Amino acid sequence: MTDLDPQIRACLLKTSTATLSTQLYRRGFRNVFLQGIRPLGRYGANMVGPAFTLRYIPAREDLDSHDAKLDPNALQREAIETVPPAHVLVMDCRGNTRAASAGDIYMTRLKARGVAGLVSDGGVRDSATISQMEFPVFCGGPSAPTNRIVHHAVDYDLPIACGDVAVYPGDIMVGDADGVVAIPRAIVAEVARDAAQQEELEAFILRRVADGEKLPGLYPVNERTRAEYAAWAARNGR
Amino acid sequence: MTDLDPQIRACLLKTSTATLSTQLYRRGFRNVFLQGIRPLGRYGANMVGPAFTLRYIPAREDLDSHDAKLDPNALQREAIETVPPAHVLVMDCRGNTRAASAGDIYMTRLKARGVAGLVSDGGVRDSATISQMEFPVFCGGPSAPTNRIVHHAVDYDLPIACGDVAVYPGDIMVGDADGVVAIPRAIVAEVARDAAQQEELEAFILRRVADGEKLPGLYPVNERTRAEYAAWAARNGR
Amino acid sequence: MTDLDPQIRACLLKTSTATLSTQLYRRGFRNVFLQGIRPLGRYGANMVGPAFTLRYIPAREDLDSHDAKLDPNALQREAIETVPPAHVLVMDCRGNTRAASAGDIYMTRLKARGVAGLVSDGGVRDSATISQMEFPVFCGGPSAPTNRIVHHAVDYDLPIACGDVAVYPGDIMVGDADGVVAIPRAIVAEVARDAAQQEELEAFILRRVADGEKLPGLYPVNERTRAEYAAWAARNGR
Amino acid sequence: MTDLDPQIRACLLKTSTATLSTQLYRRGFRNVFLQGIRPLGRYGANMVGPAFTLRYIPAREDLDSHDAKLDPNALQREAIETVPPAHVLVMDCRGNTRAASAGDIYMTRLKARGVAGLVSDGGVRDSATISQMEFPVFCGGPSAPTNRIVHHAVDYDLPIACGDVAVYPGDIMVGDADGVVAIPRAIVAEVARDAAQQEELEAFILRRVADGEKLPGLYPVNERTRAEYAAWAARNGR
Amino acid sequence: MTDLDPQIRACLLKTSTATLSTQLYRRGFRNVFLQGIRPLGRYGANMVGPAFTLRYIPAREDLDSHDAKLDPNALQREAIETVPPAHVLVMDCRGNTRAASAGDIYMTRLKARGVAGLVSDGGVRDSATISQMEFPVFCGGPSAPTNRIVHHAVDYDLPIACGDVAVYPGDIMVGDADGVVAIPRAIVAEVARDAAQQEELEAFILRRVADGEKLPGLYPVNERTRAEYAAWAARNGR
Amino acid sequence: MTDLDPQIRACLLKTSTATLSTQLYRRGFRNVFLQGIRPLGRYGANMVGPAFTLRYIPAREDLDSHDAKLDPNALQREAIETVPPAHVLVMDCRGNTRAASAGDIYMTRLKARGVAGLVSDGGVRDSATISQMEFPVFCGGPSAPTNRIVHHAVDYDLPIACGDVAVYPGDIMVGDADGVVAIPRAIVAEVARDAAQQEELEAFILRRVADGEKLPGLYPVNERTRAEYAAWAARNGR
Repeated sequence: MTDLDPQIRACLLKTSTATLSTQLYRRGFRNVFLQGIRPLGRYGANMVGPAFTLRYIPAREDLDSHDAKLDPNALQREAIETVPPAHVLVMDCRGNTRAASAGDIYMTRLKARGVAGLVSDGGVRDSATISQMEFPVFCGGPSAPTNRIVHHAVDYDLPIACGDVAVYPGDIMVGDADGVVAIPRAIVAEVARDAAQQEELEAFILRRVADGEKLPGLYPVNERTRAEYAAWAARNGR
Repeated sequence: MTDLDPQIRACLLKTSTATLSTQLYRRGFRNVFLQGIRPLGRYGANMVGPAFTLRYIPAREDLDSHDAKLDPNALQREAIETVPPAHVLVMDCRGNTRAASAGDIYMTRLKARGVAGLVSDGGVRDSATISQMEFPVFCGGPSAPTNRIVHHAVDYDLPIACGDVAVYPGDIMVGDADGVVAIPRAIVAEVARDAAQQEELEAFILRRVADGEKLPGLYPVNERTRAEYAAWAARNGR
Repeated sequence: MTDLDPQIRACLLKTSTATLSTQLYRRGFRNVFLQGIRPLGRYGANMVGPAFTLRYIPAREDLDSHDAKLDPNALQREAIETVPPAHVLVMDCRGNTRAASAGDIYMTRLKARGVAGLVSDGGVRDSATISQMEFPVFCGGPSAPTNRIVHHAVDYDLPIACGDVAVYPGDIMVGDADGVVAIPRAIVAEVARDAAQQEELEAFILRRVADGEKLPGLYPVNERTRAEYAAWAARNGR
Repeated sequence: MTDLDPQIRACLLKTSTATLSTQLYRRGFRNVFLQGIRPLGRYGANMVGPAFTLRYIPAREDLDSHDAKLDPNALQREAIETVPPAHVLVMDCRGNTRAASAGDIYMTRLKARGVAGLVSDGGVRDSATISQMEFPVFCGGPSAPTNRIVHHAVDYDLPIACGDVAVYPGDIMVGDADGVVAIPRAIVAEVARDAAQQEELEAFILRRVADGEKLPGLYPVNERTRAEYAAWAARNGR
Repeated sequence: MTDLDPQIRACLLKTSTATLSTQLYRRGFRNVFLQGIRPLGRYGANMVGPAFTLRYIPAREDLDSHDAKLDPNALQREAIETVPPAHVLVMDCRGNTRAASAGDIYMTRLKARGVAGLVSDGGVRDSATISQMEFPVFCGGPSAPTNRIVHHAVDYDLPIACGDVAVYPGDIMVGDADGVVAIPRAIVAEVARDAAQQEELEAFILRRVADGEKLPGLYPVNERTRAEYAAWAARNGR
Repeated sequence: MTDLDPQIRACLLKTSTATLSTQLYRRGFRNVFLQGIRPLGRYGANMVGPAFTLRYIPAREDLDSHDAKLDPNALQREAIETVPPAHVLVMDCRGNTRAASAGDIYMTRLKARGVAGLVSDGGVRDSATISQMEFPVFCGGPSAPTNRIVHHAVDYDLPIACGDVAVYPGDIMVGDADGVVAIPRAIVAEVARDAAQQEELEAFILRRVADGEKLPGLYPVNERTRAEYAAWAARNGR
């Protein structure tokens, strides 16, 4: 699994999921924003990193009881020890939040290993503790029950569904206060570059709108807006 | 579209949606509180203003693609430039939060135009930025994707559904931390007046309850309570 | 209705619902965490107390109109005056949040009576005020409409459903930032004791994980971990 | 529990739930049609009878396991042996269809006892067999698992919720192909009488519409329509 | 509003919504099949016709009570008398099936007027009667309550949402046992033509598959399959 | 993948999913009945066979467009040609019925290959045709759109979720009018044997109940009932 280019990462750390979604939409992608998934606690800087996937299926009593012969969480822990640093662990919990997909011990280990964050469409327990950790967690909501009640880990590093979106291993996950977007690996460079440019241009527009300018003729972006922005950027050394 | 009487507005700015819902219930209205709609960020003062409506239907690929011949957002922007100052822009997104119904540029323009707030049963993008603006936004939640993925603006200033409630142009929208209530225009004066009186009376009751008084005989309001309140109000120059 | 043993209460005040859910799972309980119920406002110390139940059925216009002959809220107020101090009032609203199950006057009265908290799978109105009171409220979310629009109180002190979980009068309710768990009364002593031990052991593990130790061999808990913890606890006077 | 007057029963056996809903709406009742409940198999004659209620709460493993000390279904069977002949057994399963609320043995017993039918907002097992029995069953759908997996019977003959509607013991339940309506006991005589008259009048209108007559002036019913119907009824000895 | 070309209608009468959906998908349309809408009763021949739209918003008690001053159904009846023969009446009920959007009298009138069918994402009452009429009805399911309980007609002949799909007046609606598809008017000729060709080719393939041929090399359609079909068609005078 | 023992198959062909669910519940399995999945058309004999699994994730526009470079359905067809005769193809569509998971050509091929049936928690197109084929299909409902709109096949023969239940390759799937149950492979022999005995005993009880006998003392089964059944069975040569 290849690491993410540092320049692209730097760019994505300050680009909003809204802008990234727009860039992906312009390339024909309509279903890349994970549904029903929110940051745990108030959110600061972006989470950025390639996806390392973990898949759960529904628990079954003979395999997932407290006294089951085989350790039902063995594969989950293996994934936690395997996800490469600077990657994001993405869990397919089939959108079921009736139980947790992880808690504070697993989060602490992930953070200690240098993992970039966790995304799950299941629940997360110990939410008060975790929201104080400096470790980005995006999930379907707080949920106290242990994962074995409804979730059984079956494999990792395979394509999964998360929040009703396809996530392939290596796709670049970016999360902010709005939620999480999955950028197909092959196009992340161009998406990051164009998103950064879009944000600079929109910041220019936003200032003018804040100053009272009307939208027509200014936004959506047209040739005149681009020219004025270029002139302004040249004057201001951007 | 008539503006809202300043005295009524002043009254509604400090009256809770809970009290307004009760006054509407007493007049036979059981479905005036918008369902599934919450303030974006923590909420301070009330949002108050007459409704200016905007209706979306599902997007269709030939009309709402990035390279569509016609600008699919033209009507949305027209609405944003048309909603009168001190009014509330209310959007019918059919409760679909898979995409945004607006973002920071549109919000900034609405604020610059003196619009009183925005209500949408769809999503809103750039939620971190918007929750820091002093502009009241109530929606179905943060959602990064551009609106064209699922929403197509078709008309404005017509009766709509929002949050499973009928909203007619000119209905008075009031929003607080609990959410948003739509007051039929024709009865807003009496509802505002009676709600203010109810709140004064309930504040009187609340103090007595906080002091340890039992509910029976005190609340719900009866003749004795009213008399005691009247006496207290007289003594205290209310 | 027996009060909760003070030592057990003290123990539960600092034990997370996550740990309690695990202890209950180990005893075969898979459905004791209330679904869809969250604390109102940010949450501090745990809510702890035996359940006193109140059951609602759907409202009917002849019984629950504003001008109904019988006071439709009489039984609700009776429950509020009857719930014993240090108990938790638990409301079965069938998960319907279209209206409030209580507001600030009832909450103030409950607090004045020394009640330990309120749990409802319906809505709660006056949410801004209540989230500032030092009174723990867990519910399906803010909702302004008066309860009579959808809820009619029929009886109290009977077994109910709340958040899709069975709650029997006297079950011990514990709430924290993750939500609320219902502990069957008969086993609360052993659950509280074992949960406290689990938390001490996990705090020991958490420190080691934070210091960079791998999970394998350390967690989940095994004989070696227990021995090391015992040694550490002995050294540190635990 | 009083039986239903035979004339009223005879009238209701041939009156549609659509017409009954309209009569109830005219009296201010907006929530008397059970939501999400359908006849099992194709439906012939109406089911009619007073409600005998049975309430379930969620199952709990210590009380509802296969090897539970107490028979968890004892109260359910007691209800089945207690519901008076010609009554309808109405079950509150909280709309949860993940398990059955009854199967062929219980249905056969109810039929043998002369019970008028069964209504449940849970599931029903053995649906193929039951849909061949001449015993009216209305439910949330087929569902094979035994009830103890999610349902625990707690009491009977109390007011309940079923299909999101209040059902009081003795309310008259009427079911046809559209579903089930609950008529408050106190007004069943007038509702049945007026519904029968409405149906006769609408049959007269339906024939004229089928013959090509326009709706305006004919329907909704007005004075002219009533006069023409009266004349026609007189001519035809109705 | 232009009628549908008779040849295209003849073609669509025997083409499945599955094939039409595929043809639309090939042209980039991913959301043209109405969700949650099924034929009432068992279905025979296709329903085909241009859409005539009717929009409802939520009812409000002052406008939609039994004793409301204005007839709340006037606009609904006007639409029923206005929809052109051979067109399909398509109702936007916001997917709410808690009440009926029409019953047997309105259906009989529509049939008498030569209307091609009715599509609603709300409920339909008198379902037993209607399923016996030779008039195609597609809806969200049977529902007895009168429409005024939740639906208020506001306008017709405007673009609407139905079953989560955009329906523009004049779009061609086709319904069969699978449900209903909305074909954009501008492309109906080519879609109908290509769908008919696809169905002939697939019938040829289906016979070979039924005779035991493997899918690889045969299906999905490739050059060899097309050539073999062309030869077969030539031999058989197709 | 081992075939199912012919005697067990013969037994399961005539045993209801209700009885099988009860036997599984007695062994501690509470989540083995697939939720939201029904037979397509009216159902006759049971579907029985070991599971062969196929997993879909959400479609993505670059991989699943009509003009995608790689054939997005290649893996689906490979699965259809690979599922062993007498096995059941079980599809994990994440419960999404917005598109079909298969249509008449695939069903015809599966039938021609001697496959025992198909189970999908997605939709199925060409439902009218398929419900006439003598091939058992259980799904989330009819749905016309081509699968590529929402489904992308990623792998087969791995454990999956279907209808919110864990399905492992080789688990024995049994379907009847109530729906589908997944029996863990390791215990199918004992479950089938005990279920057959339970059904014989319950048939004996059902006859007595139909003859008017009370439930108490007869059912649930006790020692006396077993003795009487044994005597009856001996007399009747069972």
